[in-house]
Amino acid sequence: MEEGWHARESWAGPVNWLVILAGGRGERFWPLSRVERPKQFLRLLGPTTLLQDTASRVAPLIDRAHTVVVTGQAYAALVEQQLPGSWVLGEPVGRNTAASIAWAAAAIGRRDPDALLAVLPSDHAVADPQAFQAALAQAMASAQSRQRMTLLGVEPTRPETGFGYIEVPTPSGDAVMPVEAFVEKPSRERAAAMVASGRFYWNAGMFILPLATLWEALGRWLPDTRDAVSGPAEGFDDRFAALDPVSFDVGIMERADRLDMLPLAVGWDDVGNFEAVARLLAERAPERVIWDRVEDVTVIGDDGPWIAGVGLSHLVVVRTPDVVLILPPHESQAVRTLVHRLQETNEGERLT
Amino acid sequence: MEEGWHARESWAGPVNWLVILAGGRGERFWPLSRVERPKQFLRLLGPTTLLQDTASRVAPLIDRAHTVVVTGQAYAALVEQQLPGSWVLGEPVGRNTAASIAWAAAAIGRRDPDALLAVLPSDHAVADPQAFQAALAQAMASAQSRQRMTLLGVEPTRPETGFGYIEVPTPSGDAVMPVEAFVEKPSRERAAAMVASGRFYWNAGMFILPLATLWEALGRWLPDTRDAVSGPAEGFDDRFAALDPVSFDVGIMERADRLDMLPLAVGWDDVGNFEAVARLLAERAPERVIWDRVEDVTVIGDDGPWIAGVGLSHLVVVRTPDVVLILPPHESQAVRTLVHRLQETNEGERLT
Repeated sequence: MEEGWHARESWAGPVNWLVILAGGRGERFWPLSRVERPKQFLRLLGPTTLLQDTASRVAPLIDRAHTVVVTGQAYAALVEQQLPGSWVLGEPVGRNTAASIAWAAAAIGRRDPDALLAVLPSDHAVADPQAFQAALAQAMASAQSRQRMTLLGVEPTRPETGFGYIEVPTPSGDAVMPVEAFVEKPSRERAAAMVASGRFYWNAGMFILPLATLWEALGRWLPDTRDAVSGPAEGFDDRFAALDPVSFDVGIMERADRLDMLPLAVGWDDVGNFEAVARLLAERAPERVIWDRVEDVTVIGDDGPWIAGVGLSHLVVVRTPDVVLILPPHESQAVRTLVHRLQETNEGERLT
Repeated sequence: MEEGWHARESWAGPVNWLVILAGGRGERFWPLSRVERPKQFLRLLGPTTLLQDTASRVAPLIDRAHTVVVTGQAYAALVEQQLPGSWVLGEPVGRNTAASIAWAAAAIGRRDPDALLAVLPSDHAVADPQAFQAALAQAMASAQSRQRMTLLGVEPTRPETGFGYIEVPTPSGDAVMPVEAFVEKPSRERAAAMVASGRFYWNAGMFILPLATLWEALGRWLPDTRDAVSGPAEGFDDRFAALDPVSFDVGIMERADRLDMLPLAVGWDDVGNFEAVARLLAERAPERVIWDRVEDVTVIGDDGPWIAGVGLSHLVVVRTPDVVLILPPHESQAVRTLVHRLQETNEGERLT
């Protein structure tokens, strides 16, 4: 008691909160992911799920009691099972990330009005968690002292056209810098030029948000959203469902000025499809496999039949008890096509 | 009663018997075939097994009550299940086809000393069963009237080096001809020359055998075998196990003179490996499959998970509940390698 009281008295900073956005549904990981168990709840890369990895990665900085997970109501039980002790906000319907972050801010603000929020996606991978923790601590300290919304910007390793980019004034190593602009999904040529310039970083949806600053920005740019999440419990679901679905990037970040960014070089990966999983698992010895003269073939998924093969190369095999999916890695995006086809047939049970 | 009595009285020919050799073990169809269920007991090409197809194909000529199936003791129950009403001879150990045919001959000879035996493998496919029946009837009539052992020789469609060939004096269409010689597994060049000559046919192990002629040949070339199968029931297993394993081709056919052959052009296939199965199933719409941009991919096996695929070509997928095998068709022979590897590891349960 005595010690705890002293600790609290002597502590001068804000209360740090981790906000994990775990509302993703996603079709790119079928048949491993299903409607009832999307990507963030899967053991895609090891013995723990991507959601659990996200929390573990931050655990040295923010404990479970200060972890808020925003997800769909249908997934609330899964979150409680995978991250027991966290605070789960189950959205009645998905209304994109601005609404999710606003709701988390309102909920946390009632307990800690001076909180500092670290908002992270739930379904990414980080090769170097220690480096990630150091960068996160640095960004949180900067965001707090400057009272600025601060992004973690991922150093780009390829001219990716599917991501958004954050522009900063100078190529720089590890200092916090002001954000100059956002560039959404550039052409291949522009992406290559941006990566070459050293002044553009991937926007991976990792935000450090002083609560007061965030609340002010919400009031200015998305007042309906702020009102919906801060009103009385009664009528919450209806107010929430009535919101325009807008991303936090578009609704707040691209409109706000006085944003900061800290470069992040930690082996980040958005684990966007099976090709990425295969790349991340490349070193792992596959389990429950028997084969001969097989090269660059990755078996993803631990449940389901043994996989046997002869004379194969350049394939991903996704194993589940009721479906085995086979495709070349570069076809990973086409999984959606199969899912849509299943939706159109009466084989919908393959999706759940 | 009256009618049956007349029918029997008026019938002057021999009693025709079908002898199906179903002792094959085989590793080429793993994981579909297992130690406990080899190829002939599988529904490889349709709703019935290759063994059942063999009996059905001959049914208009020889009924079930005159069908003898020689198999391993371990498979006797499977045969009784798949061909109820047949007479099953369960060998204590496999001693190759000369011993199998001799045992069937001894068993049948006790009931019908003047029998005519049609001996057929249990695991081949025939595209045109009507044509097969016509040829079989013709060969049986010839074998009976000439009292000669008579082969059905398959018209070769490619210079196959894995088969044995039967040589006849002239290229001929559909007449019974004397056999001049046997050629075992020729070189590619010799096979091509033989096929071009029109005087060589594949030896597919289909024999029409007048019992008396067969018995005499056994007494001359394989007296130990004849004695073993015709001795008293007591000690049978030991006598049988002591026999040299020799094929009927080597032990009898290649030594005998006065053999006949009838050419057979009926879409015969030995269903030697998964590539053959894929070829024979090419027209069939696959079941329990969901895919996109998939070309020349055959799913073999009805049990087990759904198979999904994107952007694949030239593959065979063999589906069972506990193993899914993936390979290019031309690698079908390499399945043995996997089986041997499983035998060497402690994953032997995948084989049973």
